[in-house]
Amino acid sequence: MPESPAETLHELIVATRILANQKVLDAFGHVSVRNPHDPQRYFISRHQAPELAEVSDLVELDLDSVPVRPTEHRLYSERVIHGEIYKARPDVNAVCHHHAHAVLPFCISGRQLVPVFHLPAVIGHVPFWDQRDEFGDTNMLVVKPEEGASLARTLGQNWMVLMHRHGATVAGTSLRELTFRTVFGCENAALQSAAIAHGHVDSLSPGEIELSSAHSVRPPSTNRAWNYWVRHVEKAGLMPAQTASRAKPAATAAKPGAAKAKRSKPKAAAKPKAKKRR
Amino acid sequence: MPESPAETLHELIVATRILANQKVLDAFGHVSVRNPHDPQRYFISRHQAPELAEVSDLVELDLDSVPVRPTEHRLYSERVIHGEIYKARPDVNAVCHHHAHAVLPFCISGRQLVPVFHLPAVIGHVPFWDQRDEFGDTNMLVVKPEEGASLARTLGQNWMVLMHRHGATVAGTSLRELTFRTVFGCENAALQSAAIAHGHVDSLSPGEIELSSAHSVRPPSTNRAWNYWVRHVEKAGLMPAQTASRAKPAATAAKPGAAKAKRSKPKAAAKPKAKKRR
Amino acid sequence: MPESPAETLHELIVATRILANQKVLDAFGHVSVRNPHDPQRYFISRHQAPELAEVSDLVELDLDSVPVRPTEHRLYSERVIHGEIYKARPDVNAVCHHHAHAVLPFCISGRQLVPVFHLPAVIGHVPFWDQRDEFGDTNMLVVKPEEGASLARTLGQNWMVLMHRHGATVAGTSLRELTFRTVFGCENAALQSAAIAHGHVDSLSPGEIELSSAHSVRPPSTNRAWNYWVRHVEKAGLMPAQTASRAKPAATAAKPGAAKAKRSKPKAAAKPKAKKRR
Amino acid sequence: MPESPAETLHELIVATRILANQKVLDAFGHVSVRNPHDPQRYFISRHQAPELAEVSDLVELDLDSVPVRPTEHRLYSERVIHGEIYKARPDVNAVCHHHAHAVLPFCISGRQLVPVFHLPAVIGHVPFWDQRDEFGDTNMLVVKPEEGASLARTLGQNWMVLMHRHGATVAGTSLRELTFRTVFGCENAALQSAAIAHGHVDSLSPGEIELSSAHSVRPPSTNRAWNYWVRHVEKAGLMPAQTASRAKPAATAAKPGAAKAKRSKPKAAAKPKAKKRR
Repeated sequence: MPESPAETLHELIVATRILANQKVLDAFGHVSVRNPHDPQRYFISRHQAPELAEVSDLVELDLDSVPVRPTEHRLYSERVIHGEIYKARPDVNAVCHHHAHAVLPFCISGRQLVPVFHLPAVIGHVPFWDQRDEFGDTNMLVVKPEEGASLARTLGQNWMVLMHRHGATVAGTSLRELTFRTVFGCENAALQSAAIAHGHVDSLSPGEIELSSAHSVRPPSTNRAWNYWVRHVEKAGLMPAQTASRAKPAATAAKPGAAKAKRSKPKAAAKPKAKKRR
Repeated sequence: MPESPAETLHELIVATRILANQKVLDAFGHVSVRNPHDPQRYFISRHQAPELAEVSDLVELDLDSVPVRPTEHRLYSERVIHGEIYKARPDVNAVCHHHAHAVLPFCISGRQLVPVFHLPAVIGHVPFWDQRDEFGDTNMLVVKPEEGASLARTLGQNWMVLMHRHGATVAGTSLRELTFRTVFGCENAALQSAAIAHGHVDSLSPGEIELSSAHSVRPPSTNRAWNYWVRHVEKAGLMPAQTASRAKPAATAAKPGAAKAKRSKPKAAAKPKAKKRR
Repeated sequence: MPESPAETLHELIVATRILANQKVLDAFGHVSVRNPHDPQRYFISRHQAPELAEVSDLVELDLDSVPVRPTEHRLYSERVIHGEIYKARPDVNAVCHHHAHAVLPFCISGRQLVPVFHLPAVIGHVPFWDQRDEFGDTNMLVVKPEEGASLARTLGQNWMVLMHRHGATVAGTSLRELTFRTVFGCENAALQSAAIAHGHVDSLSPGEIELSSAHSVRPPSTNRAWNYWVRHVEKAGLMPAQTASRAKPAATAAKPGAAKAKRSKPKAAAKPKAKKRR
Repeated sequence: MPESPAETLHELIVATRILANQKVLDAFGHVSVRNPHDPQRYFISRHQAPELAEVSDLVELDLDSVPVRPTEHRLYSERVIHGEIYKARPDVNAVCHHHAHAVLPFCISGRQLVPVFHLPAVIGHVPFWDQRDEFGDTNMLVVKPEEGASLARTLGQNWMVLMHRHGATVAGTSLRELTFRTVFGCENAALQSAAIAHGHVDSLSPGEIELSSAHSVRPPSTNRAWNYWVRHVEKAGLMPAQTASRAKPAATAAKPGAAKAKRSKPKAAAKPKAKKRR
């Protein structure tokens, strides 16, 4: 969907704010997007709580997770998760690593996460990875390239991987698909946990997973959810300002949504002025 | 309660906002109301997250779920759920389809949902439907008329039906009754799940269900709850403006005051004027 | 604590708002206070969601729950719960009936609620009442004087009673004690449910219940909690205005708190004006 | 991190607000910090809900928990928890006592709390203390010096202790480390409870606990979380003003801007100025 580099960076920040607002990300976790104009590079925030990242905090890394330009910023120690997945999976353009409370019980109990209703069919088969298996006792962070590569191997051709006693990593062909899969992966986990407490879990058949997933990753579904989550980001006062380099017409097109948001956010101090100026 | 067509549409939007604010609806799900002046037609939003729908987003469909007037809007693919229930049940005037987190554990575990306290007695007997039984592997969406008709047959003369690995559909004789039944159906589900975790579930006797339900669907109960939920919709900044076709002066007068009141001091919204009148 | 009748009514509304804000009350449930100047009468809101009640909505009833002055307002059908408890228990000056989600699982599973940490020791022994035992199938509402009297008999000399498939009723010697007991009764229930899921529940010994309870019902504890809950009511924009008849100095004394509240509530539009008027 | 006494007091208030905003503290519980310039003294709020404490509410106590200067304020009856731990543990500079809902199920069920993912490795081994063991039936409050000393003995060289049927006490070498350990101790508890409901709990190996903990207590981790939590305190309108003894101009300059920013666009709070400086 984003066309210019500035739009890609803006969308990365919006996706991150959505995932923070949906309680997937907290002080930790991170989201990245592959550079659409150079598949050997990706963008990710400097080291900080992801919700706080602005476009100006984004750094560009190569697939060895080394900054393209020298930077004085501290970087995420686990950035190799992103680089190694981009290396192994040319079809992946966006990655999220998180420790969402909905998903962690599976990482702790070792229970298999399976799609239990149609919308999260997009998680497909979710493999399990345990850093201890290959690397023994560590500080549990995925910091070495070989640790990232190991995780990427376990991910394989799937789209989500659970990390024992740690969290989850999710991949997507786009930021919107990634956001959809990440949020519904968490909702699936929460609801599967509730069904476990009922004593029985029914899951989708392989055919249902394939057909439901194919439907959900199409733009009508992912955009419908995206627009809804954006509205909630606006209501929470978390919407990032557009970058200066963003095309004006796009900004204008965005307005109807913003105008509606004002209804619930007296605080949207930035937008009204923009109106008066025109 | 609504008398004019405009009031019906406004009430549909309010009911939808209540159900969104009560965490029944999220990016998905939808609510409809039968046209009170033409029982062969019903109103429903165009395709979008239901919370975002305004009166101007409503479309009128016939009972085959075909738009009465040509429209360029994308429509809900599952609109046949509504049309087929209106066809099969002349006593039903409002329908909600949702995937509320409270109810889904029952759709996944297959546990029978039963009224566990007096207020949700209005859900009565809740049958189970599984699209796979009749249609095999699908994308799990109820999109074909025969799929909607099958769901309506399972609903039968009941008021709520659970859909395996999918969600729930609820019916009502009015929007307010529908809203009451939908919200308390979710509360019942959440509390029954909690009692399941206690190891034992007591439910209402058939006589208690009948007597409690007869009491709760009367206006004193449904309006008391409706007014409370409306207040919370106002506090969340989600109250839709009145449609233009309602008395203009009222709408105009209400707007600036209401807009401020909604944000900050909901209870001051109605009362201040009353005070001045005294 | 309240000295004048107006202060008693104001405190009843504040207690009600606290209980609504703490998620004890929703569209249903009600709170009452005995008239401190006439123990044969009590005050309670007219029929509506309790959170919405203002002082002007309060009606005065005798202990047969008949209005002292004729009123056109609809009254709570379950008001005999209050009247019959005041009749049976001269030491009780405030009553709350609710269906809090924390407590209902016990009403559904039949599990015994027991104090599991020191603060809720104030609930003491919590007996169980089932309307069906004495009255067979009903609409489950406590509307007849004999139904209220039966509930009061089961309450006996205790302070909280669970009602099967219905909810709970709590009593106190004052509104602040009632509020403390009601909120911590709910917290105890939620935490006991969590411990049940752990597979084991340790509870306070009889001696611990007696000693802890004696400590918690003293003003330092109940006021500390009351002041905290009031702050949260202020932050939620739910604080009722003082009634006109309330002593001015008291109103002035209340201000520092209000001023602090503004910090978090830009919306407190009502108060600044009041200031200007003085 | 804080250098001046005023900064220490301000940071104590910020830590307290974070812990209140993160739902660790409610009407009860308390946080203290050792006087960095006199290790025989510590600061703690006078008796009140901790969230409401301002710098002006702080009192200085010696390690017998006696006020250094006479005060008319009521003090926390359980202040000996703090004094006795500071006595026994010269390496501890900050203490929090709380009854967080996440942790209480363990205090009620007697289940062992163990680190289940990498971030809460900082809780290490968590011993259990039961006031009844040594003191029989009490009001369950830790009010006598010997009760505090007993608790400190059970804490030993660990950093967190569970108190049967009561709550938890957490220690840190600094306020930021304490805050990190307290919040993640609660998150660990909530997630371990969820895994218990799954039927199986995997925990970190001793080596993983040591390596993960060593990483997490370093400033890059604790500051990243602290900055995130501070942002949320600002968004909740809970950020305390700077004390007068801090640089006046900064305090003054920060006030109007900060006040607005808190309400509506928290992320604009810090950054705009930085931008202008560039």
